[in-house]
Amino acid sequence: MRLAETVARIGPADEAAGAAVQAALDAKTKPRGSLGRLEEVACRIAAARRTGPGPIRATIVVAAADHGVAREGVSAYPQEVTRQMLANFAGGGAAVSVLARAAGAELHVVDVGVGAGTANIADGAAMSRHAAVAQVEAGITLARELVASGTTVVALGEMGIGNSTAAAALTAALLSVEPRRVCGRGTGLDDAGVAHKVAVVERALEVNAARLDDEVGTLAALGGFEIAFLVGVALGTAAERAVVLLDGFITAAAALLAVRLAPHARDSMIAAHLSPEPGHRLVLEELGLAPLLDLGLRLGEGSGAALALPLLHAAAAIVDEMATFAAAGVTDAGR
Amino acid sequence: MRLAETVARIGPADEAAGAAVQAALDAKTKPRGSLGRLEEVACRIAAARRTGPGPIRATIVVAAADHGVAREGVSAYPQEVTRQMLANFAGGGAAVSVLARAAGAELHVVDVGVGAGTANIADGAAMSRHAAVAQVEAGITLARELVASGTTVVALGEMGIGNSTAAAALTAALLSVEPRRVCGRGTGLDDAGVAHKVAVVERALEVNAARLDDEVGTLAALGGFEIAFLVGVALGTAAERAVVLLDGFITAAAALLAVRLAPHARDSMIAAHLSPEPGHRLVLEELGLAPLLDLGLRLGEGSGAALALPLLHAAAAIVDEMATFAAAGVTDAGR
Repeated sequence: MRLAETVARIGPADEAAGAAVQAALDAKTKPRGSLGRLEEVACRIAAARRTGPGPIRATIVVAAADHGVAREGVSAYPQEVTRQMLANFAGGGAAVSVLARAAGAELHVVDVGVGAGTANIADGAAMSRHAAVAQVEAGITLARELVASGTTVVALGEMGIGNSTAAAALTAALLSVEPRRVCGRGTGLDDAGVAHKVAVVERALEVNAARLDDEVGTLAALGGFEIAFLVGVALGTAAERAVVLLDGFITAAAALLAVRLAPHARDSMIAAHLSPEPGHRLVLEELGLAPLLDLGLRLGEGSGAALALPLLHAAAAIVDEMATFAAAGVTDAGR
Repeated sequence: MRLAETVARIGPADEAAGAAVQAALDAKTKPRGSLGRLEEVACRIAAARRTGPGPIRATIVVAAADHGVAREGVSAYPQEVTRQMLANFAGGGAAVSVLARAAGAELHVVDVGVGAGTANIADGAAMSRHAAVAQVEAGITLARELVASGTTVVALGEMGIGNSTAAAALTAALLSVEPRRVCGRGTGLDDAGVAHKVAVVERALEVNAARLDDEVGTLAALGGFEIAFLVGVALGTAAERAVVLLDGFITAAAALLAVRLAPHARDSMIAAHLSPEPGHRLVLEELGLAPLLDLGLRLGEGSGAALALPLLHAAAAIVDEMATFAAAGVTDAGR
């Protein structure tokens, strides 16, 4: 589906559906609100889905692509690792493969530009506006297919050596913050590596300054193919009234772009966790999303989203399966 | 098994087993340490179990008892709710019933004094020293049986109207802090209710002052039957080299008593979550345990422990199922 058409379909969440779930929870055999953020998650899912919150049927979409900026030496790992990890995903041995199985989630890995990656953002635009829109629309199409097949929660995952540099550049541009505030260690840079990464992002913002007027221009100038694709997955999922579960910093940057294009897409989003990447916290604050987990995860792939999925299952289960005070014959103190 | 004999059997964790798991994790296809606290959990389980970390076979032990101090009006709920909730656990409709199923855990509910509860701690000792030791030893016996039957993780849960007052009194005594620092809203007190609870705990500490010379005396003076039983469950589990998963404030108070009796019991413990009860944070800090979740949970029953169990399963799965750099043909940058 076309980008503009999808954006037009993304309306506000159904607050009444959320309130109905809270009322149902308030009749269950527990003090009001005593399951804390689990109750909030149940209501948020219901508001996003306009029903439910259950059933929770999760698919983790891992979009993989290469980044021209990797040749600047911004990652602890060589670019060939992106392709190697595609094989590892397929073989079931990657972290997200294992964690998806543990969470009972489907894993959907998409090669959106491995090998034939983006141009180097330190030298110019990562891709054309046309290519950016094409990736977004491919992501929209996948999301529509997944939701049509019964997926109710789409988790965002990514793989791409160099992509925390692209996410840092996007975040710096979108939030108008200095690159040093959004550049972290990625998968293992030392202090000198981080300083170099800051300098590379500064160059990327400078050489692309004329291209940062709108969201699509910013995405094309600084993004990765997988980030563009995930923008589309987020938009398509929100348009189809399913839940978008964010993972780490790179997926948060994609979510921020999606929300800039369609503000109500935010209502469909849940932040799985907070990573140590300094830009991640800034983006989640901008999105107004409080992460469910804070476990020092900095792997990406969708691994943090997979780890948060049991909380979504649990939130749905308490709504569907807990007894009410009346049914269980338990005295309700009304608190 | 006798208390003294059990305490004598609780030795330090096997740091070599933990280090072996970290070495195994460092060969997996991910940057070193990038799964953060999940890696720490895997190593901690292995050190406690002297093997593993898997398989994770969890039993949630919910000990239920009544408290004489409930007649002081320290809870938002009437005492009859303890017995009503026993039936709700059996019927599968309580929060922990639902969350145990969602986590694939066994639920083991034990009535250790519902109806025939403790005496009012605001008037004197909750129970005799003999009764306290008997409850602890009953808990030890259950833990031994569970571990012998294949349980590798024993989660602590509780039910007992008034038991956050008992836990507050125990914590104030054991940590030598003022009652106002450890009295919270429990299941729903307002400000006046909390102030009254503080006054009740102050009375309990005063009337029992002569009984607080040792751990067993303190437990007998201020504890609940379920707290005493859970002290035994924690000790028995640690002695049998399985993992003790803590839930909220009441189970933390039981864990603190267990560690005061057998300091190395701490090595077998994992804190599932941090509740809003002010005493919970103090006890976890004293135990040196960092909670895995912080979701505003204040229900008890073992509900927070049930919600953390998927993280333990995931920690074991990454060790058992992830590919190594060598096996997957992924370039290892060594970081």
